[in-house]
Amino acid sequence: MDVKPLLDRFAGHDRRALARLITLVESRSPEVPAIMREIYPRTGRATVVGITGPPGAGKSTLVDRVIAHLRAAGRKVGVVAIDPSSPFSGGAVLGDRVRMQQHFLDEGVFIRSLSTRGRHGGLARATREVVHLLDAFGHDVVLVETVGVGQTELDIMKLAQTTCVVLVPEAGDTIQVMKAGLLEIANVFVVNKADRDGARRLKNELEVMLQLRPAADWNVPVLLTEATADKGIEELWTRIAEHGVARRAARGDEEQGRERFEEWGEILRDEVAERIDRSLAQPDLLPLGERVRAGAVDPYTAALDVLGDAELLARMLGDRRAGGR
Amino acid sequence: MDVKPLLDRFAGHDRRALARLITLVESRSPEVPAIMREIYPRTGRATVVGITGPPGAGKSTLVDRVIAHLRAAGRKVGVVAIDPSSPFSGGAVLGDRVRMQQHFLDEGVFIRSLSTRGRHGGLARATREVVHLLDAFGHDVVLVETVGVGQTELDIMKLAQTTCVVLVPEAGDTIQVMKAGLLEIANVFVVNKADRDGARRLKNELEVMLQLRPAADWNVPVLLTEATADKGIEELWTRIAEHGVARRAARGDEEQGRERFEEWGEILRDEVAERIDRSLAQPDLLPLGERVRAGAVDPYTAALDVLGDAELLARMLGDRRAGGR
Repeated sequence: MDVKPLLDRFAGHDRRALARLITLVESRSPEVPAIMREIYPRTGRATVVGITGPPGAGKSTLVDRVIAHLRAAGRKVGVVAIDPSSPFSGGAVLGDRVRMQQHFLDEGVFIRSLSTRGRHGGLARATREVVHLLDAFGHDVVLVETVGVGQTELDIMKLAQTTCVVLVPEAGDTIQVMKAGLLEIANVFVVNKADRDGARRLKNELEVMLQLRPAADWNVPVLLTEATADKGIEELWTRIAEHGVARRAARGDEEQGRERFEEWGEILRDEVAERIDRSLAQPDLLPLGERVRAGAVDPYTAALDVLGDAELLARMLGDRRAGGR
Repeated sequence: MDVKPLLDRFAGHDRRALARLITLVESRSPEVPAIMREIYPRTGRATVVGITGPPGAGKSTLVDRVIAHLRAAGRKVGVVAIDPSSPFSGGAVLGDRVRMQQHFLDEGVFIRSLSTRGRHGGLARATREVVHLLDAFGHDVVLVETVGVGQTELDIMKLAQTTCVVLVPEAGDTIQVMKAGLLEIANVFVVNKADRDGARRLKNELEVMLQLRPAADWNVPVLLTEATADKGIEELWTRIAEHGVARRAARGDEEQGRERFEEWGEILRDEVAERIDRSLAQPDLLPLGERVRAGAVDPYTAALDVLGDAELLARMLGDRRAGGR
């Protein structure tokens, strides 16, 4: 597959080319590293903001209002929503997305859901790559929305410069927030649906808990919002922007170097794992695979057989792309 | 490292050897595939039951009561608790575990927490391996407890023959259950804290939702429990056992073969990814790594350089264990 024409259209600001490249990333096309190499030099300009929290916290509505706020200021916005979708829940998640469709005809907004269905991991990498694409395309802000709690979702939040954790008064006590690992990743806490009982109490509890932590460069604010009534959105964005400034000031060359090094390792690990995956159905491995299926050899012995055979491994990891770039 | 003496002690039913082997799995020792190859023939006897649900559903107390119920019946129980632990939440999670410590002196119970901290993924595999160890050690039942919602946690539940999803009336409406992907993985729903308002309503809603699904071999029951008062535990275990029987009856050779094949692929992918990871700090890759850190080459170009060099890849994937078995 020749991706050059697609990359040319992408560079020419063709939204359909952007959509197509995201699909290639999502489907883990073997072309992904070559695509990313081309667009990488144009990345690093967007402000990447993560929005996470438990199901039902009103994240989608909040994202919708943040988009409207940013559009009013003339900024281009990309959104990646990580959907824990499934054959049964697809409809429900879609319901949320529909609310965002008011931005559908706006050329300054690009919204894409990434499904988590049937993945062997690698979701954090795919999300990072979609963020790179939205960034390189020229979006000023990229919002990444996940349903928090899971480890994968927490990992994804590390991609963001600023992470907002959205809670609602009904979310239970703050001990649960700590158990879900949300306290460490939050740069800004949002208590949404703040007109409901318990909003003030949750805010106070969070503030007490935040004060128990070691002193840091950034004091995590706890904001009250009512996304459905468009209340608190402006202050939310102001604090996100302030955190971005503080973060950039605190982030030295060493940290940037470490992030690049970690991204390199991530790409290598995932790419090799994907090549292994694709090779499992290849003729070389069929006889061994059949013996594993039949129970004639256990999976660990079979894995050690492959790992001990350097020549076989080299064939498995070789570039299997039909065309080349 | 010679793991033979450790495996001998494990075979001799030494609990400290079991604990040490679990630590090797958790720390991703290069010895893991060789260890698992040895113990694999003794696996497949335990009933593996997953317990998941949102934070605050009372899972730990429920697990505690299920252990007591099984011990009263003379069955040996292993427990793996997947902790989304963190420097700040460690204490809170520990609080839960303390309740399980009444079983601490019972030789028929082995409880271990697996931390999710700082992982590149591979948690599902590590959990599977700990389950294999607990199974091969001679536990009749292995309980796997996770804080549900995240994709990784849902993946972990696939290891179980039977998955129980624990909710509480406060958990919010059933739409949230669907959004979190819990509906598809539940073989048994548990509405815990059933003395609270809304328990019956949640049960009814779940039952309606379950009826909307395509007909299946197993009708997912929705049970009411009060774990703190030890209510409903016996019926819960009865239904888990019934599901186990139904599942074994429905599970043909083909499915078993597919599971073995998938486990093989998982081991290969993860093991190769880990070898890549370890090799990033090796002399071969230091100059390229330094250029990535310095920003002289972007991570994708550097990854493609490595992937295009078969000889370098072979060295990276070679067996780096100091001793060998």
